[in-house]
Amino acid sequence: MLPKGFLLATAEAGIKKPGRKDLALVYSEVEAATAGLFTTNKVKGAPVKLDMERIKSGRGRAIIVNSGNANVCTGKQGMKDAEETAKIAANGLGIDENLVYVCSTGVIGAPMPMDRMRPGLKRLSAEVGKASLEDAARAIMTTDTFPKFITKDLHINGKEIRISAFAKGAGMIQPDMATMLCFIMTDAAIGKTQLKKMLSDAALKSFNRITVDGDTSTSDTALMMANGMAGNNPLKENSADLKKFKNALDSICFELARMIMKDAEGATKLIEIIVKGAKSGKEALKGAFTVANSLLVKTAMYGNDSNWGRIMAALGRSGITLDEEKVDIFMERLNIVKKGAALGKDLEANRILKENKEIKITVDLNQGGGSARVLTCDLSEEYVRINAEYRS
Amino acid sequence: MLPKGFLLATAEAGIKKPGRKDLALVYSEVEAATAGLFTTNKVKGAPVKLDMERIKSGRGRAIIVNSGNANVCTGKQGMKDAEETAKIAANGLGIDENLVYVCSTGVIGAPMPMDRMRPGLKRLSAEVGKASLEDAARAIMTTDTFPKFITKDLHINGKEIRISAFAKGAGMIQPDMATMLCFIMTDAAIGKTQLKKMLSDAALKSFNRITVDGDTSTSDTALMMANGMAGNNPLKENSADLKKFKNALDSICFELARMIMKDAEGATKLIEIIVKGAKSGKEALKGAFTVANSLLVKTAMYGNDSNWGRIMAALGRSGITLDEEKVDIFMERLNIVKKGAALGKDLEANRILKENKEIKITVDLNQGGGSARVLTCDLSEEYVRINAEYRS
Repeated sequence: MLPKGFLLATAEAGIKKPGRKDLALVYSEVEAATAGLFTTNKVKGAPVKLDMERIKSGRGRAIIVNSGNANVCTGKQGMKDAEETAKIAANGLGIDENLVYVCSTGVIGAPMPMDRMRPGLKRLSAEVGKASLEDAARAIMTTDTFPKFITKDLHINGKEIRISAFAKGAGMIQPDMATMLCFIMTDAAIGKTQLKKMLSDAALKSFNRITVDGDTSTSDTALMMANGMAGNNPLKENSADLKKFKNALDSICFELARMIMKDAEGATKLIEIIVKGAKSGKEALKGAFTVANSLLVKTAMYGNDSNWGRIMAALGRSGITLDEEKVDIFMERLNIVKKGAALGKDLEANRILKENKEIKITVDLNQGGGSARVLTCDLSEEYVRINAEYRS
Repeated sequence: MLPKGFLLATAEAGIKKPGRKDLALVYSEVEAATAGLFTTNKVKGAPVKLDMERIKSGRGRAIIVNSGNANVCTGKQGMKDAEETAKIAANGLGIDENLVYVCSTGVIGAPMPMDRMRPGLKRLSAEVGKASLEDAARAIMTTDTFPKFITKDLHINGKEIRISAFAKGAGMIQPDMATMLCFIMTDAAIGKTQLKKMLSDAALKSFNRITVDGDTSTSDTALMMANGMAGNNPLKENSADLKKFKNALDSICFELARMIMKDAEGATKLIEIIVKGAKSGKEALKGAFTVANSLLVKTAMYGNDSNWGRIMAALGRSGITLDEEKVDIFMERLNIVKKGAALGKDLEANRILKENKEIKITVDLNQGGGSARVLTCDLSEEYVRINAEYRS
């Protein structure tokens, strides 16, 4: 069951291989407060540019998602195609086209196959309400190996509130950008400004703290709609209700981020890098990301090799304040490095790596109070295989 | 033949697997002006710290290199071991220990096996003059698949001058840091200050412009000795002679950098990334390095897939000034993207990738006059295999 007033649809437009759904629609029966977060890449897909313009209104009714073609580096025609996509959907649904958002993920630099999109979009409008959350999550999958969706219920001033979300992860679109898309629906009544702030905060602790390979897609998008159909009083700033909702949203985003990382291309392990005792939170984050993106660290993790020298080396080149003789490193709860020196626990640490699919590595720099957490994965031959395949 | 007054030696100390030389010695019969460049990683090996102290004198007589153990994160004992290594060599050679430099590459965090080093170093002193440039290059090889060495001759005010150099590359020390070591000897007479400046300049255009995986070793070192035995008048600033020497040195360093990249772990292609038309030289370099380190670009190159969307995406996230609608991209001389749009040359570009082991990719940002060149390589399953192997 979805939050009140939300309906989903899926269809096949033939952008991807035949037999696979490649269109999804999120539709709200009434206008919803809408917030969005978009890729920081300077090269952005046409749909991203369109959405960034439309999101200024803070309002929305529908989201159209297609996979198979990212509509990036497609010039003026690309923007026309994105606009037409929204327009066809709006006409089919009988709503204002300015309240329709478009998300595309797939190959870069190829024109949108509008001849197939047009009939596909018409079929999509006819399917409204027929798809489940899982169906929608499946329709936007690419090399994702499992659909990513989640629902949470909570009570807020006597009303039942539901938040449902689905996402696609860092799987390749045969084979282009590792793109993250995430769509969150709730029937709670929330003001535009609150919604935007809550989504940003939640992303900062989830989607902005994960890395597969350090590359940032040109199409990353998270959209959230709150249509108020649960009938609660709008959430007030600093209220206990808002805090309750915020916690639920944070946990939804973190869970989706975890799912995305668990399903990262070719990954065999989910790795949580915690850097604490840094001079500042910013330095902790920089250190954690440098370790999380180090190929040498990631390949060692894949090989079940607790090669902490590579962690030290990554921290050393990260540019943060560091005194190697103060650094402590833990593999799960096992202390393997104390004050920069080995404790001779390598075999034990290797066993931890071998026996677990989720590993927590904690580095204490003992320099101050800054800390940060980043989720990453190991790097396998399979990642290379997936990403080296021909597009054609 | 080596530059006048230089002698080499190699020996087996048993740090690596039996049957492989793991010690090399560079020895000058007279004191030489000596310059060094060291890793920018904040975590540095004990030998690096020792050398950085000693290089302040600008003088040297000998360099001891061992492979198999990097002597990094080894605390006070590590520094004692590096000092003892220099001392044993100095005693064997009958020279001042302060004129001896030490370089170690290998596993991090393991104590130096001094019980094996001591007799090894004694054998090394007895071998002075018996090793060729190639022998020395081989002795410092790790997973390098070929020895890297080069000699150039030039005439300067009637004297024959020789420059010889050897290096090890981004091959793993079964399996730790991808460390670059480089040793340059010349019989030219050059002042300390000139030597330091020339070495820095040459490195800036060679060793500092290559990347295998973006990781910086804790042991990277380049040392250059000029002993003056050719009998030339010391090279004067801004003179034609100095320029001639500088050109030879630049080309030696660039050739060694190329050899290192050609032999990068698991690489099947040497890729030259040129970014021009950037707002500044700094931005050009940042853009080139971001493309050169992008896993998505590197795996596409491995798969002979001219996936220029990944180049655009890397440039887009690099943080440099960029207008996607101004970007031109060339694969060798083939223009594949014009003003940010595809020219439909993908199949032709893929063929270029398939048929060449060395590829030049040129990006023109059309934003200004800044340009930069970076050498990188593709990323193969073999890289992952090499780096995921157990240390033990």
